[in-house]
Amino acid sequence: MSLSFRIEKTPGTARRGQLLTPHAEIETPVFMPVGTVASVKAVSQDILEDLGAQIILGNTYHLYLRPGVDTVRGLGGLHGFMSWNRAILTDSGGFQVFSLSELRKLNEEGVTFRSHLDGSSHFFSPESAMEAQIGLGADIIMAFDECTEYPADQSRVRESMELTARWAARSKKYFEEHKHKVPWARVGADAFVRPAERSSARGQLEGSTGQEQIHAAADSGLRPSGRTKASVPTQSLFGIVQGGMDRALRKESAERTIEIGFPGYAIGGLSVGEPRELTREIVESTLEHLPKDKPRYLMGVGTPEEIVEYSNLGVDMMDCVLPTRAARHGLLFTSEGKVSIKQARFAQDQGPLDPNCDCRVCRRYTRAYLRHLYASNEVLGQVLNSVHNLSFYLDTMRRVRHAISLGEESRFLSDIWSRSKS
Amino acid sequence: MSLSFRIEKTPGTARRGQLLTPHAEIETPVFMPVGTVASVKAVSQDILEDLGAQIILGNTYHLYLRPGVDTVRGLGGLHGFMSWNRAILTDSGGFQVFSLSELRKLNEEGVTFRSHLDGSSHFFSPESAMEAQIGLGADIIMAFDECTEYPADQSRVRESMELTARWAARSKKYFEEHKHKVPWARVGADAFVRPAERSSARGQLEGSTGQEQIHAAADSGLRPSGRTKASVPTQSLFGIVQGGMDRALRKESAERTIEIGFPGYAIGGLSVGEPRELTREIVESTLEHLPKDKPRYLMGVGTPEEIVEYSNLGVDMMDCVLPTRAARHGLLFTSEGKVSIKQARFAQDQGPLDPNCDCRVCRRYTRAYLRHLYASNEVLGQVLNSVHNLSFYLDTMRRVRHAISLGEESRFLSDIWSRSKS
Repeated sequence: MSLSFRIEKTPGTARRGQLLTPHAEIETPVFMPVGTVASVKAVSQDILEDLGAQIILGNTYHLYLRPGVDTVRGLGGLHGFMSWNRAILTDSGGFQVFSLSELRKLNEEGVTFRSHLDGSSHFFSPESAMEAQIGLGADIIMAFDECTEYPADQSRVRESMELTARWAARSKKYFEEHKHKVPWARVGADAFVRPAERSSARGQLEGSTGQEQIHAAADSGLRPSGRTKASVPTQSLFGIVQGGMDRALRKESAERTIEIGFPGYAIGGLSVGEPRELTREIVESTLEHLPKDKPRYLMGVGTPEEIVEYSNLGVDMMDCVLPTRAARHGLLFTSEGKVSIKQARFAQDQGPLDPNCDCRVCRRYTRAYLRHLYASNEVLGQVLNSVHNLSFYLDTMRRVRHAISLGEESRFLSDIWSRSKS
Repeated sequence: MSLSFRIEKTPGTARRGQLLTPHAEIETPVFMPVGTVASVKAVSQDILEDLGAQIILGNTYHLYLRPGVDTVRGLGGLHGFMSWNRAILTDSGGFQVFSLSELRKLNEEGVTFRSHLDGSSHFFSPESAMEAQIGLGADIIMAFDECTEYPADQSRVRESMELTARWAARSKKYFEEHKHKVPWARVGADAFVRPAERSSARGQLEGSTGQEQIHAAADSGLRPSGRTKASVPTQSLFGIVQGGMDRALRKESAERTIEIGFPGYAIGGLSVGEPRELTREIVESTLEHLPKDKPRYLMGVGTPEEIVEYSNLGVDMMDCVLPTRAARHGLLFTSEGKVSIKQARFAQDQGPLDPNCDCRVCRRYTRAYLRHLYASNEVLGQVLNSVHNLSFYLDTMRRVRHAISLGEESRFLSDIWSRSKS
């Protein structure tokens, strides 16, 4: 067993838990910063650690194209390659093949596509996507799915959902047969739950002591010492539920994915252009059909208010490029709403970006300085803006977890939500 | 008195000293990273502190255009604006008016030029350049000079040198009459030699104890406590020696500048396209005419080997954009020579960038990862490359200072020099 998920508190639909992977103990619900090509854009790994990020995401499609899976595997997988000793999750590449590449040709076997970088031709199947993700060596990897476009008629959505189900079975079969090839399998004991990673000051504030966490690991057979060969940790493969905006097809997709059997389940195919109210409806109805004891991952979501809202509904994991992408465009999230730092009204503003934020940016710099860096197109502006936005997201999740622990989800979460709105 | 310079050791021509300004104690010879528009490109202020930078440079021409002197003054000067509590030096704007702006028109009064940003028309005179630099509030500011082009005939060089001398006198007159207007004059006692700035771990290794430094400050009347109104610290204005590539004109320029009287002297007008051997000759001959007890600043220099070489000749201060600019182009300085990290041969290289470097980049990342960041055009690549190159420069100066302290300048400096060559 290479993944353990313990739920501590469930006031209403929200869940407060701990997810244990070979490289980290993750407090849930969790927001995962996106490090597309093995770098969370503009933010160095030591700052991510300082922010308390326990898990980040990598994009298989991008990494497969550059630097290539062989290169990453040869350098110890993503953990070794980017010098990140906490947890990593990679997506399957499916979403980006469909959104970024050109000249896709899809059939039962897989999808042929052209690189958005140089036009070269490539082929992804469930098997090759698993092979790539095993080579990249993230703690959690995703089944290869087809992300259905929006809008789409019911027969198209059904066809796509059924293909995803067949691909999920093939993904699992290949993964089970090859999972021992993960780059860190042989050094598993060393890489597994490093003591240094436990002592994160922020982690200590989360309400669980290191001792409790070690017990949790021991309970699930994950403790490094005394492990037999059979218990060497590997990656974990999550299934993905599709089914477009059709609640019945979502239910069927959930049932078929659960029947195949995975240690965690993702909801894919949302945030593809549909109205936000519809997203919420589909998430809410899909969650009803997912096992309560397994982690639930909502892919590609969302704004600060959305990550609070979906935590409240019972989602355990989320990821989104929004905090870092918005930062590069000078759009900053604060406890007082969104701030477009490029505006001239900040040119003389001596206040911190967010008076309620304790991040290294808000502690040290003024809005006037951040505005100047943006206006002057200075790289440091991208760096500082990204650090603040990630800090805001991770702090928001810390407050969400605290509220769930206190069993106060309705009042406190809606308070966080309204403060995060803009 | 707002500047104190103490020379501790002078083996041969090299000098080991301490320069005390209102915001820092600077071990000399020193290399000053360039923060053109109030940001050392891609490097945050906390990392600069961590690297041990005690003084950085700002460019008056750039800051005057954006964000403007009034904005910076209103936010407490550069120190407040960019949240940098150690020392700052600003150039006069002269060099950049001549190298960057368009449609210059020069006369006795000053120079009219068009902004390289938007084509707007501006005028710099010795008086307005002083006014700008007083508003920016650096610890050390520079007289307004004309940087003579290369090549130029003797009569042109003489004319230009004489104009610089007349402008130096006007710069000093305006500065003496207005220096009390520096933004931090009223909070001088608080901003002056902050205890927190003294405790830099790297500074402690330099061979002088904090206690000694406090005595030096007290000796020169700079100690914060017990200061009378008359001893409130202000900025210090340095003169600039011009004279092109003509040794006699350099001598005359030095004598005329010394006659006006400044607490420090710079050698300007070099690294303008002349052969390197000529630069060295002019530096060497000009240094002979500068007072031994005042800091000597060689502007706009240089490569790692040059900063060692000029330290050896008796230069106390240097600045150059090279470490940060080269970093952004993937050119890295190491103890084993220059490394162009973009090369494919580094794609699988698991070694650190520089095995003899202890900077945060070399401690954590591989050449393969740095190469990948460069090839993928990731912002983090610019950040990490810049941090390493600055670390290499500042470490080189640390070794130079240590060698001078030991009185070993010839052997050890030439060793550092040859190791820095490529």
